[in-house]
Amino acid sequence: MSTITTDALVIGAGPVGLYQVFQLGLLDMRVQVVDSLAYPGGQCIELYPDKPIYDIPAVPFCTGRELVDKLLQQVAPFKQTFHLGQEVTAVEKQADGQFLVATSASTRFLTKTIFIAAGVGAFQPKLLRLPGIERHQGQQLHYRLRDAADFAGQAVVVVGGGDAAVDAALALVNAGTAAKVTLVHRRDVFQAPEVTLSAMRAAIASGALQLVIGQVTGFEENDGRLTAATLTQPDGSELSLPLDALLVFYGLSPKLGAIADWGLAIERKQLVVDTEKFSTSEPGIFAVGDINTYPGKKKLIVCGFHECVLAAFGAAAIVFPDQTIHLQYTTTSPKLHRLLGVETPSSD
Amino acid sequence: MSTITTDALVIGAGPVGLYQVFQLGLLDMRVQVVDSLAYPGGQCIELYPDKPIYDIPAVPFCTGRELVDKLLQQVAPFKQTFHLGQEVTAVEKQADGQFLVATSASTRFLTKTIFIAAGVGAFQPKLLRLPGIERHQGQQLHYRLRDAADFAGQAVVVVGGGDAAVDAALALVNAGTAAKVTLVHRRDVFQAPEVTLSAMRAAIASGALQLVIGQVTGFEENDGRLTAATLTQPDGSELSLPLDALLVFYGLSPKLGAIADWGLAIERKQLVVDTEKFSTSEPGIFAVGDINTYPGKKKLIVCGFHECVLAAFGAAAIVFPDQTIHLQYTTTSPKLHRLLGVETPSSD
Repeated sequence: MSTITTDALVIGAGPVGLYQVFQLGLLDMRVQVVDSLAYPGGQCIELYPDKPIYDIPAVPFCTGRELVDKLLQQVAPFKQTFHLGQEVTAVEKQADGQFLVATSASTRFLTKTIFIAAGVGAFQPKLLRLPGIERHQGQQLHYRLRDAADFAGQAVVVVGGGDAAVDAALALVNAGTAAKVTLVHRRDVFQAPEVTLSAMRAAIASGALQLVIGQVTGFEENDGRLTAATLTQPDGSELSLPLDALLVFYGLSPKLGAIADWGLAIERKQLVVDTEKFSTSEPGIFAVGDINTYPGKKKLIVCGFHECVLAAFGAAAIVFPDQTIHLQYTTTSPKLHRLLGVETPSSD
Repeated sequence: MSTITTDALVIGAGPVGLYQVFQLGLLDMRVQVVDSLAYPGGQCIELYPDKPIYDIPAVPFCTGRELVDKLLQQVAPFKQTFHLGQEVTAVEKQADGQFLVATSASTRFLTKTIFIAAGVGAFQPKLLRLPGIERHQGQQLHYRLRDAADFAGQAVVVVGGGDAAVDAALALVNAGTAAKVTLVHRRDVFQAPEVTLSAMRAAIASGALQLVIGQVTGFEENDGRLTAATLTQPDGSELSLPLDALLVFYGLSPKLGAIADWGLAIERKQLVVDTEKFSTSEPGIFAVGDINTYPGKKKLIVCGFHECVLAAFGAAAIVFPDQTIHLQYTTTSPKLHRLLGVETPSSD
């Protein structure tokens, strides 16, 4: 597998990671971006795409989605590549000071600098907390549906009340290859777009999808195989639901993940940085946004934006060791106008 | 004269001063604002109202004027009063730790905290650099036109090639009370809106306005009074232009001004601050934006925005000494929604 060489690797494509890409672009650095989610935007998209934000400077009102859209528009002039749906799993410092980085999708980078803009951490599925069930993960227990065809001929139980659960159940029904599809939720209320809910109700009415109300409180095994989920129903009674596969969608929760093992200075799960360059304790690795800490730190997007600026200049000193990097203004600099792909206005 | 009592006095109504007002508003502080210009916006309005800015996060493009308009919209929910066209002239610490502040317009404040967001300083007129002429300033030499009626019956010489000079000359012509109005500029090219230039050419054609091309390189006095300006014309010859009043419009240049005399720690004309609260060396006086310095400082608006956040929290500890101030989010906090005058969205 080939290795991508780059000046900067940004981990996290949330609003601060995106603005980091912009600031690196203004300094003419090559940038690659990795994010654990399947799309850019981070928390803003995952947790509050439609909720209002009022405190972005000069943006009196926007939603999380609008904020991300504007930032994506802002980074568009710069060459960068997004590597989505994957987490950084390994970072290895090389003899020449560069970093060799690998992701869960086996993407490999050789980079001069790293920017950790991972917010509250990588979003990972909340797990079913039943002692012993973890040994079935990846075999019969899954936290995502990759391909409905994987479950041909099987009795599949899908657990959850959000759109991820409903979408998975409908994908299995529509594929038509599973022997039986059962949707399990603790109450008969689902959070999903109206069109999805209508399709779900139609599938239930036609008998293509079974609906069972209850919570998964146990499981049965036979000869090392998962054979049934034990449900506790609203009236307190128990029900054994035979299955070949169990798909659980309890939402995502952020985890610091592999970053915790990189040997960086950490204080209360935050990466300790200086306020001059927002460098971690490892030269060449910077941390910006909610994942860092320093005296006075406030976990606000506006603060992360500032951190990106100083971190970018910190990195420029590493990437361009023989140059003095001067601050230029986007209002007046022909060099920045060329990078941004805009015309330099004539002076008065 | 009554004294205005307030929690916070913001000096400077540029983009960073305006966002400081916003952050103080979110923390429920009473705010007063002073600026030397006649309108909010600072450099953005004074120096580049129509020039593009590309690096405000989530604002891929705006002009200086648009940036200021958006920030004014953002602070609109908060009570604050702008005191424009005046500079802070005196700051006196009181025994109880508050500050008594006076401006050039004799406005007086008693404030718990001060935020210096004065950018490159107060904009002051560029002076005519001729040794000895300064003794006429305020008598026969002026750097602004307050009222054309002040010059009734006088021979007035207006110097400059920008719209301030042309506007002043036309105001004097239109008032019709001056004995003679002469516009002097080093070349016959003026920077002013087309409509102003047309009016100027018409006034010259009608004889109501005299135009002389040349530079003011000397002056004549008699009995302590200014009697004439000496002009050097493009061909090198000298011309003596008799006058009763000399109005000079050589543009504005920023000056640190009185702030330099407050006893604050200064490094290369910048106020030294910490990066935890952006406090100056005087507790209770904060400095944000281009006027401050700290390790890593970049003079960018986006950095000033961050500084406002931490300075506001620094001030909250002084204004509300008995409270623990928690960070709240505009996306979710009912208290912030009340302050912003918006509805709290229902949760999913």
